[in-house]
Amino acid sequence: MKQRTGTIEVATERQGLGVVERWVREPAMREGLLTLFCRHTSASLVIQENAAPAVRRDMEAYFARIAPEDPAAYEHDDEGPDDMPAHLRTALTGVQLAIPLIEGRLALGTWQGIYLFEHRRRPHRRSIALHLIGE
Amino acid sequence: MKQRTGTIEVATERQGLGVVERWVREPAMREGLLTLFCRHTSASLVIQENAAPAVRRDMEAYFARIAPEDPAAYEHDDEGPDDMPAHLRTALTGVQLAIPLIEGRLALGTWQGIYLFEHRRRPHRRSIALHLIGE
Amino acid sequence: MKQRTGTIEVATERQGLGVVERWVREPAMREGLLTLFCRHTSASLVIQENAAPAVRRDMEAYFARIAPEDPAAYEHDDEGPDDMPAHLRTALTGVQLAIPLIEGRLALGTWQGIYLFEHRRRPHRRSIALHLIGE
Repeated sequence: MKQRTGTIEVATERQGLGVVERWVREPAMREGLLTLFCRHTSASLVIQENAAPAVRRDMEAYFARIAPEDPAAYEHDDEGPDDMPAHLRTALTGVQLAIPLIEGRLALGTWQGIYLFEHRRRPHRRSIALHLIGE
Repeated sequence: MKQRTGTIEVATERQGLGVVERWVREPAMREGLLTLFCRHTSASLVIQENAAPAVRRDMEAYFARIAPEDPAAYEHDDEGPDDMPAHLRTALTGVQLAIPLIEGRLALGTWQGIYLFEHRRRPHRRSIALHLIGE
Repeated sequence: MKQRTGTIEVATERQGLGVVERWVREPAMREGLLTLFCRHTSASLVIQENAAPAVRRDMEAYFARIAPEDPAAYEHDDEGPDDMPAHLRTALTGVQLAIPLIEGRLALGTWQGIYLFEHRRRPHRRSIALHLIGE
């Protein structure tokens, strides 16, 4: 059994979903488990539909509705009106994914992509810690 | 240290929560970690109360309320009005679980069951990738 | 490769977020993966902002709004009006986290803390199963 750890940096340009899958496509083992962990409280990791861009637009609009920017709704606004909603959207969608690696490939379904969900309005550099174990 | 990977197929008959635990009850190791990964964007994996059926009915009704079928609310409707809400409910509840295996048993709490949450109205065949590591 | 399993008990005093990080700060390996699994259906594990207490108050208020105590909304109320909302808030936030261990430290971001989110009103003893693998 072997393991590898590492970190990837992702530059986000805007609020919304960006694909991270290409960074982890060649996992260098045949069988194992890849864990991704987003090291932030205002960006998250989600598995979502990789084909229709409308899905990503609807998803962004949905989270903007259920955890809205609304200064009257929150006590915390140290970094502006998109700050607290970003924390809430992160809590709702999660910062960690673990994906089995089977026969040399991540066991993603046909329509699944791995996305970094940026919840702040401005561009950010985001760090994702990785752990791979297997053979 | 050993590992095993595999895939189980689950036939869902309707929208809602179905138990998957029986597929993973005999983990064949004493100490380790079992990871389940649902390979879809319109079905999810949740740990929930395994006793009262009313909990599952309330949960299904709740997710139907907070991510409703509402054609006016979404751009994406390629596969009908239950399509986009299914993606949203999946993002809210997640597709992956990792459960420690301690003394030959999954470390589930007394009231915890593992459920596949089908978010589409029609029956589907769902695939769950598994990874088990331990001794 | 080595692994360790274990269980920690956390006493919660009230509804809301309590830090669990100190229980897992000295992971006893240099590289690996730590998995935490909350063995309940009315308490969850979240990574959240570790600095501003207002974030935690806003988060508690938010989940009280989107999964409210409302006897008219739920069929299940065996243990009182905070019972079913606790199950829903658990499903929305999740019971499991896996965090890479890199160079002897959990790969948490600067502002990330690990919290047990108690969703019941009364004090509870909560059990978290742990799995650590690595070298």
